[in-house]
Amino acid sequence: MAEAVVITDVTPRDGLQDATGFVPLEDKIALVEGLVSAGFTHVEVTSFMHPLRIPMLSDGDSLVPAVAHLAKHLVALVPNVKGVERAIAAGVPTVMLVASASESHNRANLNRSRRETMVILAEAAESARSQGLRVHGAISTAFECPFEGRVPVADVVEMAQAYQQMGVEALNFADTLGTATPAMVKECIRAVRESTDSFAALGLHLHDRMGWALANVIMAYELGVRRFESALGGLGGCPYAPGAAGNIDTEKLVAFFEAQGIGTGVDLDRLVSVRHSLLKVIAKGLPVPEKGGS
Amino acid sequence: MAEAVVITDVTPRDGLQDATGFVPLEDKIALVEGLVSAGFTHVEVTSFMHPLRIPMLSDGDSLVPAVAHLAKHLVALVPNVKGVERAIAAGVPTVMLVASASESHNRANLNRSRRETMVILAEAAESARSQGLRVHGAISTAFECPFEGRVPVADVVEMAQAYQQMGVEALNFADTLGTATPAMVKECIRAVRESTDSFAALGLHLHDRMGWALANVIMAYELGVRRFESALGGLGGCPYAPGAAGNIDTEKLVAFFEAQGIGTGVDLDRLVSVRHSLLKVIAKGLPVPEKGGS
Repeated sequence: MAEAVVITDVTPRDGLQDATGFVPLEDKIALVEGLVSAGFTHVEVTSFMHPLRIPMLSDGDSLVPAVAHLAKHLVALVPNVKGVERAIAAGVPTVMLVASASESHNRANLNRSRRETMVILAEAAESARSQGLRVHGAISTAFECPFEGRVPVADVVEMAQAYQQMGVEALNFADTLGTATPAMVKECIRAVRESTDSFAALGLHLHDRMGWALANVIMAYELGVRRFESALGGLGGCPYAPGAAGNIDTEKLVAFFEAQGIGTGVDLDRLVSVRHSLLKVIAKGLPVPEKGGS
Repeated sequence: MAEAVVITDVTPRDGLQDATGFVPLEDKIALVEGLVSAGFTHVEVTSFMHPLRIPMLSDGDSLVPAVAHLAKHLVALVPNVKGVERAIAAGVPTVMLVASASESHNRANLNRSRRETMVILAEAAESARSQGLRVHGAISTAFECPFEGRVPVADVVEMAQAYQQMGVEALNFADTLGTATPAMVKECIRAVRESTDSFAALGLHLHDRMGWALANVIMAYELGVRRFESALGGLGGCPYAPGAAGNIDTEKLVAFFEAQGIGTGVDLDRLVSVRHSLLKVIAKGLPVPEKGGS
């Protein structure tokens, strides 16, 4: 029997952050409840960024308490100690730190340099761990950057080493643009494995511009990666990455694994039903069309 | 530098066999010339089946001599000794034998049992080799069958062993339906490698119903497979496999490899230009819509 994977559905966070219209709290609650009912043990529920940076997710402080009965399944993205405090106050047990491997995207996304970001994240990690939270880390633009093109693997390795020093348990590589190839995935994972004591877990957060996401998934799986992120309807993107495509679609990812006897813990029929019942919410997650588009 | 691959474009054969309208000889000539000009060293040009079985390809005896200056690049599908004779008369240097791993599809496609087919193919292989042709073999429905579902790997192995006894140099596994998974590809390739003296080359002929074709490609590449088949515009199918999807699109396959530094020998810009100049021909390759479809 093939080793199972853990899929984190990121629809409530990444899937809605580019939304055309604000998704009301009750719809977000239904989304989180639906995802857990389909079998997801990990749902990225919100980000505790400054509300003005990601207005769509400004209600995380209310959302998490509203799904307190599901709290153990929730992950929240946090940018700093203040985010950690909000995560603790709301009741999220796992926080995801994020920084970009490329300087330009990090500045666009987080408004400061990578170096400054890692100092702030180290404080956040320390604060979170000392208060009993689990701490995961993500490296955005781990493969290509909308401003700089191909990101040197050495930059990803440097960031992985910094995360390791912070005591991060699980490390995710994010293909923010959706243009990574299996060769890039292999190079990245091997380089990080060779340059760090192994993280408890490595993961991939894939967008899917080129139709290469599943090829990246199977390459990573073959290399021992067991954590993947996805969003319903292939929603998502990055407000600060022009041209970023949506996340890999959750149903497509679950079906791909299940067809190979690789367990996901997710009930695909139930997932389809949840997605169907939430179509109006998901439709709001579609990104704002560019002016002049057809 | 990653090891290069050999892509056989099968548009003139597989891509057109389901066509809505007959593609005239001059268009087929332009197609073959265009593909070779884009860099393909292998083009599957026609099949020498009985003209009534695949009427769209009944002009192979005229087509091959018309592109005699490109003959060294051409491969033709043949079902029997008579097909070999036609291939030799026309001037094709490489013949591809074909049989299905599932009994039902073999009967639908070739009108006889697998056992009878392999006897006939052995005669064809012997005839072809004795007259100086290169002989390749293909196993259709190597993963799933439209009538029988999952095809036992043991049946594929048995057929591979039979092909080996015929002295076939290269062996292609065909995902006729387009539903194979990377796990199936891995199981098949490993089982055939373990049960046969290695063929000079193994290849994949992929259709792409599920969007898993590139994941299958990279899995096979990781296992050492270096031969792949594809068709312009994702054309193709099988008149005797209800529900079969088109082949993996040639541009998509070339771009996927080239983006990873895996050489294909194909000039992608030139290929796009060739495809564009042949749009009307390719459009005729679209399958006949089912009645009542929208």
